Amino acid sequence: MDHGPAILGQLFVLLLATKIGDEIFKRIGQPPLVGEILAGLIVGSAVLGWYEINEGTALFAEIGVVFLLFRVGLETRLTDLLRVGPQAGAVGTLGIALPFAGGIGLGHVFGLSTEVTVFLAAAMVATSVGITSELLMEQRALGTTSGRVILGAAVIDDVLAMIILATATGIAAGGVSIERIALLVLVALGFIAIVVVGGTGVLRRRPSLLTEPVFARTPFLPGMIIMLGLAALAAAIGLAALIGAFLAGMIVGESSERHALEEEVAPVAAFFTPFFFGAIGAQIDLAGLVNPAAILMLLAVTAVAVTTKFLGSFIGAISLGARRAVLVGWGMVPRGEVGIVVAGLGLQIGVIGAAMYSVVVAMAIATTLLVPPLVPRLVRWAEGPSAVGARDVDRAQVRPT
Amino acid sequence: MDHGPAILGQLFVLLLATKIGDEIFKRIGQPPLVGEILAGLIVGSAVLGWYEINEGTALFAEIGVVFLLFRVGLETRLTDLLRVGPQAGAVGTLGIALPFAGGIGLGHVFGLSTEVTVFLAAAMVATSVGITSELLMEQRALGTTSGRVILGAAVIDDVLAMIILATATGIAAGGVSIERIALLVLVALGFIAIVVVGGTGVLRRRPSLLTEPVFARTPFLPGMIIMLGLAALAAAIGLAALIGAFLAGMIVGESSERHALEEEVAPVAAFFTPFFFGAIGAQIDLAGLVNPAAILMLLAVTAVAVTTKFLGSFIGAISLGARRAVLVGWGMVPRGEVGIVVAGLGLQIGVIGAAMYSVVVAMAIATTLLVPPLVPRLVRWAEGPSAVGARDVDRAQVRPT
Repeated sequence: MDHGPAILGQLFVLLLATKIGDEIFKRIGQPPLVGEILAGLIVGSAVLGWYEINEGTALFAEIGVVFLLFRVGLETRLTDLLRVGPQAGAVGTLGIALPFAGGIGLGHVFGLSTEVTVFLAAAMVATSVGITSELLMEQRALGTTSGRVILGAAVIDDVLAMIILATATGIAAGGVSIERIALLVLVALGFIAIVVVGGTGVLRRRPSLLTEPVFARTPFLPGMIIMLGLAALAAAIGLAALIGAFLAGMIVGESSERHALEEEVAPVAAFFTPFFFGAIGAQIDLAGLVNPAAILMLLAVTAVAVTTKFLGSFIGAISLGARRAVLVGWGMVPRGEVGIVVAGLGLQIGVIGAAMYSVVVAMAIATTLLVPPLVPRLVRWAEGPSAVGARDVDRAQVRPT
Repeated sequence: MDHGPAILGQLFVLLLATKIGDEIFKRIGQPPLVGEILAGLIVGSAVLGWYEINEGTALFAEIGVVFLLFRVGLETRLTDLLRVGPQAGAVGTLGIALPFAGGIGLGHVFGLSTEVTVFLAAAMVATSVGITSELLMEQRALGTTSGRVILGAAVIDDVLAMIILATATGIAAGGVSIERIALLVLVALGFIAIVVVGGTGVLRRRPSLLTEPVFARTPFLPGMIIMLGLAALAAAIGLAALIGAFLAGMIVGESSERHALEEEVAPVAAFFTPFFFGAIGAQIDLAGLVNPAAILMLLAVTAVAVTTKFLGSFIGAISLGARRAVLVGWGMVPRGEVGIVVAGLGLQIGVIGAAMYSVVVAMAIATTLLVPPLVPRLVRWAEGPSAVGARDVDRAQVRPT
């Protein structure tokens, strides 16, 4: 059990760096998570090399986003999500379709092979619900109409992205099995439906279930157990672990002990989430981007990734009015860790090379850094100052910094 | 960053199992941590094989004990520790000397080589301050005279154990360098003295340092950064990481924000510590213990480990009166993770074989399971019911379960 100084030292470096980045960005009136990502970039292999991604530090990053989405789930009621179901469905679907088409088009323009083209497109489709959630939480906008549409769309987005990734992996492996993909989709949708409807139903009928009959005083550890269990289960069936954590939060949020749980989860989430944001920045490899061809490719991929995601989501959300559609479209743009994970998978199975990997990772980080500065103003413009913060907790309170 | 289900699933299994073990042991009036260790044994490779020690799960276990000792440090004032310095020194020294002599004696009786004998003795010396601290916290006895002597002795114990381990490793490598060991000792003592005296001094002069000039509202993340930094530093110079965390807790405990910090640290510690206790149980290998020779060896090693540690510590603490000396002696007996780490190191560098490894691990767990049931009665008998809980927080409050 003795890891020596190495891993504890790296966790120390990343926590200190992200804290400094966070403080600086707060003081200059910019979104703290951008400061945390840039801090990760500086201590990561791109610049100082004091922090590296390994099994231990990656686990902290993953648990970080699991906690982030668990907290978002706690703040989200299923009934509120279902009320915006049609809009969320449209945003999720069009917000996947247009970037995918854009990726395919880019592949043709740059003359890439079918396998590489499909992987590039797959890496461009999925929104990072982690980044978007944190931004909405910072602005206390999770409970607004736009916030709920974004959350619902992010879940649909992840299911569709999983299908596309399975298809891309299948093509790279020499053939797509329609049966296998259909099975994946059925299992994923069945999981979401059964877990959410069943879980919230049970807790709505017996809101004290987490404490009274079986467990001790506080619902904290039962909540953590449900969170880890559903995150593991989601990952096991091909979804992102954070989707499971989000569903777990929605279920546990029906408990009568919700507020006690929120208070206890807040510091644990505050401890873990900087490792998630910092690790995103630490993934970038500047050395792979110093030649003109890579820079041109990066600019093209980023431009297509931003415009297609914005347009698709904007069209999907237009029934909410133009202002909210702009906020939803912009909020869906960050690719964050999802693009990085897909690129890493492509590199690992040998479909894409190191150069394309660097481009995709840089695109994911660029979309993530572009979005936050505009979000506070967009939220006020689209939702009005009075609609904001209605049912959300104060970030200052729940995320001590 | 995508670990898939494997590691999240294992964390889920261990958290669920330890929670169940904890609840059962509470209901039958036994120490919860014993239930957590046994739960780890059941889901570990010895029985069900649902949980295995790997880089990720081991990191959670290590961070678990780091948080445990950080919290203990928060409850401990340096002045209180220094007041019992002479007794703690005597307990630490004699509590190491007698078990070491016992281990050497055992090696001669069983006819082991010098290298193996010294390693066996090294694995028998060090008290698990993690186990003892949790027991004292459960009984709200950290602030009693006996509790302070045990904590102080545990720090001295760890320094001495480090010297012995360095010597044992040196002998196994073909020679001991006195200069190297002297340097280790100087660095370790210098680290402890400078960190504790300097750190507490600075914060005592400016108790609001963690929040006001540099950082934001709450002292939580600054506290976490100091904890990880000193834990990493302690590990880097050969001490246990938990010693660094304990010192960090003592320093931060001088802050004017101590109570806010305690409240925020409690749930994070509650999340992590079950991974520490569960992992101890999961280390055991029952298959290595099914032959009569191994069982005889285990009984002999355990008997010597218990009696020598008890006697040494008892004699060291006798100036506090016989009752307190009994409590201190008994409280120092658990070897917990420390014996396991030393045995693992011996196995890794090839000094001891798999059979001896199993024996040492089983001894460490046996001493850890033997001690807790008696502690509540001993605390009341030695310190009186009124002396207990004076300056400690309620475990029920700080460790939600």
